[in-house]
Amino acid sequence: MAQESKQKLWGGRFSKGSAVLLDRFNASIPFDYKLWKYDINGSLAHSFMLHKIGILDSDELESIHQGLKQIALEIENGEFEFKLEDEDIHMAIESALINKIGDVGKKLHTARSRNDQVALDFRLYVKDKIKGLQGRIIELMSVLLDLASRHTESIMPGMTHLQHAQPINFGFHLVCWSENLRRDFKRLQSSYERNDYLPLGVGALAGTPYGNDREFLAKTLGFSAPTLNAMDSVSDRDFALDLLYDIAMLLMHISRFAEELVLWSTCEFGFVSISDSYATGSSIMPQKKNPDVPELLRAKSGRAYGNLISLLTTMKALPFAYNKDTQEDKEVVFNSVENAEISLEILKEVMQTLKINTRAMEQAAKKGHLCATDLADYLVREAKIPFREAHHITGQIVAMAEEKGCDISELSLDEVMSFNDRIKVDVLEVLSLKNSMNARTSLGGTASKNTKDQIEYLKEWIKNVRN
Amino acid sequence: MAQESKQKLWGGRFSKGSAVLLDRFNASIPFDYKLWKYDINGSLAHSFMLHKIGILDSDELESIHQGLKQIALEIENGEFEFKLEDEDIHMAIESALINKIGDVGKKLHTARSRNDQVALDFRLYVKDKIKGLQGRIIELMSVLLDLASRHTESIMPGMTHLQHAQPINFGFHLVCWSENLRRDFKRLQSSYERNDYLPLGVGALAGTPYGNDREFLAKTLGFSAPTLNAMDSVSDRDFALDLLYDIAMLLMHISRFAEELVLWSTCEFGFVSISDSYATGSSIMPQKKNPDVPELLRAKSGRAYGNLISLLTTMKALPFAYNKDTQEDKEVVFNSVENAEISLEILKEVMQTLKINTRAMEQAAKKGHLCATDLADYLVREAKIPFREAHHITGQIVAMAEEKGCDISELSLDEVMSFNDRIKVDVLEVLSLKNSMNARTSLGGTASKNTKDQIEYLKEWIKNVRN
Amino acid sequence: MAQESKQKLWGGRFSKGSAVLLDRFNASIPFDYKLWKYDINGSLAHSFMLHKIGILDSDELESIHQGLKQIALEIENGEFEFKLEDEDIHMAIESALINKIGDVGKKLHTARSRNDQVALDFRLYVKDKIKGLQGRIIELMSVLLDLASRHTESIMPGMTHLQHAQPINFGFHLVCWSENLRRDFKRLQSSYERNDYLPLGVGALAGTPYGNDREFLAKTLGFSAPTLNAMDSVSDRDFALDLLYDIAMLLMHISRFAEELVLWSTCEFGFVSISDSYATGSSIMPQKKNPDVPELLRAKSGRAYGNLISLLTTMKALPFAYNKDTQEDKEVVFNSVENAEISLEILKEVMQTLKINTRAMEQAAKKGHLCATDLADYLVREAKIPFREAHHITGQIVAMAEEKGCDISELSLDEVMSFNDRIKVDVLEVLSLKNSMNARTSLGGTASKNTKDQIEYLKEWIKNVRN
Amino acid sequence: MAQESKQKLWGGRFSKGSAVLLDRFNASIPFDYKLWKYDINGSLAHSFMLHKIGILDSDELESIHQGLKQIALEIENGEFEFKLEDEDIHMAIESALINKIGDVGKKLHTARSRNDQVALDFRLYVKDKIKGLQGRIIELMSVLLDLASRHTESIMPGMTHLQHAQPINFGFHLVCWSENLRRDFKRLQSSYERNDYLPLGVGALAGTPYGNDREFLAKTLGFSAPTLNAMDSVSDRDFALDLLYDIAMLLMHISRFAEELVLWSTCEFGFVSISDSYATGSSIMPQKKNPDVPELLRAKSGRAYGNLISLLTTMKALPFAYNKDTQEDKEVVFNSVENAEISLEILKEVMQTLKINTRAMEQAAKKGHLCATDLADYLVREAKIPFREAHHITGQIVAMAEEKGCDISELSLDEVMSFNDRIKVDVLEVLSLKNSMNARTSLGGTASKNTKDQIEYLKEWIKNVRN
Repeated sequence: MAQESKQKLWGGRFSKGSAVLLDRFNASIPFDYKLWKYDINGSLAHSFMLHKIGILDSDELESIHQGLKQIALEIENGEFEFKLEDEDIHMAIESALINKIGDVGKKLHTARSRNDQVALDFRLYVKDKIKGLQGRIIELMSVLLDLASRHTESIMPGMTHLQHAQPINFGFHLVCWSENLRRDFKRLQSSYERNDYLPLGVGALAGTPYGNDREFLAKTLGFSAPTLNAMDSVSDRDFALDLLYDIAMLLMHISRFAEELVLWSTCEFGFVSISDSYATGSSIMPQKKNPDVPELLRAKSGRAYGNLISLLTTMKALPFAYNKDTQEDKEVVFNSVENAEISLEILKEVMQTLKINTRAMEQAAKKGHLCATDLADYLVREAKIPFREAHHITGQIVAMAEEKGCDISELSLDEVMSFNDRIKVDVLEVLSLKNSMNARTSLGGTASKNTKDQIEYLKEWIKNVRN
Repeated sequence: MAQESKQKLWGGRFSKGSAVLLDRFNASIPFDYKLWKYDINGSLAHSFMLHKIGILDSDELESIHQGLKQIALEIENGEFEFKLEDEDIHMAIESALINKIGDVGKKLHTARSRNDQVALDFRLYVKDKIKGLQGRIIELMSVLLDLASRHTESIMPGMTHLQHAQPINFGFHLVCWSENLRRDFKRLQSSYERNDYLPLGVGALAGTPYGNDREFLAKTLGFSAPTLNAMDSVSDRDFALDLLYDIAMLLMHISRFAEELVLWSTCEFGFVSISDSYATGSSIMPQKKNPDVPELLRAKSGRAYGNLISLLTTMKALPFAYNKDTQEDKEVVFNSVENAEISLEILKEVMQTLKINTRAMEQAAKKGHLCATDLADYLVREAKIPFREAHHITGQIVAMAEEKGCDISELSLDEVMSFNDRIKVDVLEVLSLKNSMNARTSLGGTASKNTKDQIEYLKEWIKNVRN
Repeated sequence: MAQESKQKLWGGRFSKGSAVLLDRFNASIPFDYKLWKYDINGSLAHSFMLHKIGILDSDELESIHQGLKQIALEIENGEFEFKLEDEDIHMAIESALINKIGDVGKKLHTARSRNDQVALDFRLYVKDKIKGLQGRIIELMSVLLDLASRHTESIMPGMTHLQHAQPINFGFHLVCWSENLRRDFKRLQSSYERNDYLPLGVGALAGTPYGNDREFLAKTLGFSAPTLNAMDSVSDRDFALDLLYDIAMLLMHISRFAEELVLWSTCEFGFVSISDSYATGSSIMPQKKNPDVPELLRAKSGRAYGNLISLLTTMKALPFAYNKDTQEDKEVVFNSVENAEISLEILKEVMQTLKINTRAMEQAAKKGHLCATDLADYLVREAKIPFREAHHITGQIVAMAEEKGCDISELSLDEVMSFNDRIKVDVLEVLSLKNSMNARTSLGGTASKNTKDQIEYLKEWIKNVRN
Repeated sequence: MAQESKQKLWGGRFSKGSAVLLDRFNASIPFDYKLWKYDINGSLAHSFMLHKIGILDSDELESIHQGLKQIALEIENGEFEFKLEDEDIHMAIESALINKIGDVGKKLHTARSRNDQVALDFRLYVKDKIKGLQGRIIELMSVLLDLASRHTESIMPGMTHLQHAQPINFGFHLVCWSENLRRDFKRLQSSYERNDYLPLGVGALAGTPYGNDREFLAKTLGFSAPTLNAMDSVSDRDFALDLLYDIAMLLMHISRFAEELVLWSTCEFGFVSISDSYATGSSIMPQKKNPDVPELLRAKSGRAYGNLISLLTTMKALPFAYNKDTQEDKEVVFNSVENAEISLEILKEVMQTLKINTRAMEQAAKKGHLCATDLADYLVREAKIPFREAHHITGQIVAMAEEKGCDISELSLDEVMSFNDRIKVDVLEVLSLKNSMNARTSLGGTASKNTKDQIEYLKEWIKNVRN
């Protein structure tokens, strides 16, 4: 015989109590206790509304408020006992309220259902966290842009295919990172707005007969408007999926930054050095200094992708309206949010304390014929050769340099001029790294001046967003 | 010795030709040929720009235009040969152009790179397809809302946990579906706007020294503005991922509709009957009529999720700027787009030809004590019992009915009244399915009148969106 | 200035201490404490080995054993304090050991590294859990087969496309479920065997100079053999991925069983009734009895898929050998294992207490022309008509029955015989559900006798596996 | 009015023909035509069996064989027209057969269904492809081991966290790669064996009444045995999922190798140089030589993961038995298989033509204090210091070297000895890279001798596997 749990609030029609194993499998309170603040705020708003439409009188309202506030205090102080048999945070708080204030507490659940209640709580959580993540993104961007401002003249090899391609400055590279983050900010913003609708007050799936004032609830709880359709309100988890996707993208971007930090920290690259405060050692190899933080940042994309797939899978082919399956929405969102928060925080610290080795960057830029494109462009401009041909001639000059084991900038003028008789001594100018970088003045280009403009634009954007 | 392929346009520095196996592995032309129209449009705009900044004279411009248009014609007529050794659509068209118009053709690639070119082509494709998908969503919504309009009085059992819960009307259910689609529309819209930036003209990763006019290009090609940072422009695939996610969500929603169509078509439910034109038979069982279309629609979410994970995985931890890895972005996007397009189209047809069995729906609604919540609400309202207690009493009435093998509406008045002495004869009114449904008049509720309001609101929204 | 954490055991070369934020981000002890028992067992074996090769003398060995056992006791009794600044369970136990027994404790880490230590602990965990899951699978299969034994004559509609197809018995259906579980068992077994290699003793990545006896370690710790290559031993996480996949498959199978339980519990199907002990109610609708357990079981596939994708993503493109990224392997494996364990356990309970409504099943089987294939087969056999044509004729008989609103078995003999003059009165025999079911006697068929054979075979298989 | 397609073989009960749009959405022939050879082989075996049990006489058998063989020839020669309205390869071939040989052709489908037929064809494909992939894995391993044999003395820095850790040889590193592949081989093998069961002859889901001889079929078609349960046989797609997972793992491993090839090809590492035959250039930068092949190999893991998730998603919560959803199983398996095949092939070529720069590897090994662990081990051994303390002292020696900007091996003897008075002149021996490497002689270690043993072991294993 299965061990029985305590009698449930919904147990009127049941002849047997729940098995304890059921509680262990079914209960969400081990994780959804995190929603307590949102649940209490939702209940406060709901009780105001019940008072407004005449279901609670002023004394009852007062009594419920006192009860809820006391419960909030107990939870905050760690004095509240979350019990498995209460199933979820909603039942836990409702039970506690009834215990505290008696029969009046039993009126609170009028004109709502757990279905709309949990949708409300979770949306409030998601809205809150989006705002928090946006704030952290802005903070990280600010750190990156400050660093970028100091490095608009620091030449490094710009890479494609991880091969040296063209000379850029480090500031320009950081602007690229920032642009990724700016899209993350905007993506969160559109998720916020698309889902900023109040589900509370639709009951189980079909609305209620109490004439509840959902406009009032939306206003009180800070939503743009109530949802349009009751059944959709309890079935929809788009708001959670959108956040999971936004975080997957954010952590994908961060995995790219992290990969670069790992590479740049290698002995071979040596472009940066992570502060001892954010590096770790080895239990066996005494010389090791490991970039654990970027490595973990890189890895966190895994959880974020997995969390997204988890909920997408769970939602696949679910019939309407509410199904218990959707209870699986919370743990994955909590995990993604917490990973995103700490990732943004620690990456900011790492960047703030990062030592940039500009000399190593510049040395590296001297390898790999970085000015080859400039040479081809020179041939187009000065020798009036079509680009495709100029490209081919330059390729052959590179081949000669490779054979001699030097950079094209180290070939003699004679050697270079031997390839085409319109090449003049001014070709030397295009073979300078600095000139090459500063020549790229087209909109979005890497020239120091352009990079500064980009930084300025983004700082201005941040200022606007912050207001 | 590996078999050699033809000499490449970029082969100046290479001492050996490409292996044929390399072409087979590396070439994207077996799929990216689909971008041909966007590639030619991009090149047309680019040549106008080159003319504007003095790199092409009017004759050269004219010659390039003639060449490109001829190529477009050949492709359209199926006369153009796509060859593996041309690697990709960009090289195929550039090669053909040079073949056709000679050396002038070699000037076209001035001030751009394949990196920004492919980013442009793919963004043009994505923008185009988003608009197309939005159109199809609107068409499907229109069909659903027309059907909904005809069924605002057709009672069916509203379900939670796939158990009968409360009476709703079929129109209300379809509004729920529509709301899912409306979010899909909005999600696509925000993806469109967030990514509506022109990458062309940033060169390989760092900008160009030609002073190319990217504002002009943006305007010509219909982008809101040029991208801010060159390196980001060639590394970013957010626009593709956003679309993959949008389609994953769309097909997730459709998998839910499809699951319901499958259920409703069963012998057990019998709520709907799919038109013979959109059903299939069995090779062995002569009596079978199978809902293949909803089943495949349900399954298509799989590909959409997989495509999303594919590109997310590919992008994980990629260093900047361009890497060959990103070539894997296209096939998955093409597949998701094509699946989404045909899914929307065929679902629209299925719904348009669907036979609704309203009698079966109503019969079903008579089972499962659908008015139990109304009874509890009655006790709250008339007997002044707190909801939690009213719920418990009703649960016991249900238990009695279950024991007798009938619905609570089939219990005698005496039996019902025996549970509480404030229950009066007017309790019968709340035990009517129609009354129960029409009592749910709160905003978003299922009452016929409310459902009509919701339909009206959505039709108005569509009208606005269409303009 | 970042707040500093405590001095690390590996901190010799570091000029600054770790930031507290680093501990919070980096430490794995909040979850890897679960490995404590495996870590201690690994250390016990390692110390025996160190003694065997002369690095520890007998007193040192004894002292280390006492220390480790004491720590084990403290952890078991909840007296051991897990501290974030200890980073992971390995360092926590090593630190505690040094605290307890002094300098001798510092010798324990000779000839090993955290890299091989964590690989060992995690493999021991995985091996243990595989055995546990296999046991639970066998238990569930036993319950299913017992139930199947009692229902080899209980006719129900076999379905394809969720449409009635051919009559089967419920026992046969449960054998199908069991076969899925049997593959899960075998899949776990092959994962176990493929990964049953000891990583301990390979040091950081390259082996050690101490001449450690890894054969001895393998034997002591119950592995089939030591790993072949040191670098692989610390980089490989296949054993974890294999388990994640095995569980994804197991929970996918269970999601299919669960879907059927949800369907069968609906008002429309009514084939089964879940025990009140494993069902739940609604907070608002007093009549509801919800199949929460099957719904959650169905949903759990989501987490399992997500966990698999998480680690696959993390491992993508990781260079050799050990990287911190792999720390992300544990939480997802723990979650999948725990979900699988409780899912198997509760599904077993649900099935053991499930009420089977055989009358409803049989009633259902009477709808949907289940004997149509038999009729076609009759035409092949008796009227010598090729199957493809027999199929067509039967299709037309079905169409007539549909038009009349009855099952083909309810048509008059005259009506049936009107379609072909070789149809005789004995056609009635093939239109009986029981005859139809029992006619399917080919190997694997649904005839009661065959079903019993299948059950017998599986019971025998279980007996062999248990020994 | 929807446009109508041609009359279907299963259309007896249908009053309207299929819509053309249905064919376009529903038909699998655009991809499952790839199964034609397996379908014909399956039908040949099935007809032998039908003859054996007396359903076909010898003339009929002969006629069917002639027809099928002719169809095979036509397909092979590209003369067979695959038409959308034939839906799938099974119907296409059956239709063609009936066209060719008349009514006898209509007998072929006796005692089977498309459900078992497609399961058979797809299993035959999967079995075939597994064998092919195993062969390619062995070929790649052979190339790696040959290369390894030539580099057991080539010192390079072994890395953890991408930081120099301990000296290893390049051969040892390649053995690590090989071990990954060996597990892939074994994983495929266990998938093969676990799924080596014949589904043919179970009919739609419940068996057949024809007494078909499935043992005979299994033997004829090369399966270990027939499946146990008919319903399972048509519902099960584990064999496809297992292969998708096996390939996801294989391509994950290859993504790790590829990442290393990309890194090693950088200007910064310079450890290897990819043959010009397998590298590519840039359309704009004439100097570029890009590792496109490793980059694409790295990216292919994305598709493999996505394909796995696709089918896992599709199978989630599918009720038994066959559903149309499972049609989505094929395209993803085809794609994964083809990617895996060409990836193995081209990686083999790249490795065979790879230039190894042993000088650069050895130069790199001189940086990063690679002998620090040896120094700590020396302190343990010679100075009898517990490892934990020896680690700390060595850390401080490293810190001194770092400050002086040199490797610890470049410190003066006096400087090293100043840290502990038991350090003697023989400490110099442990600071030699070669000595350090060759000291790691524990089983699995990197000492040249050990590496050779590992290579020998694997070559022997290959020899056994090939037989």
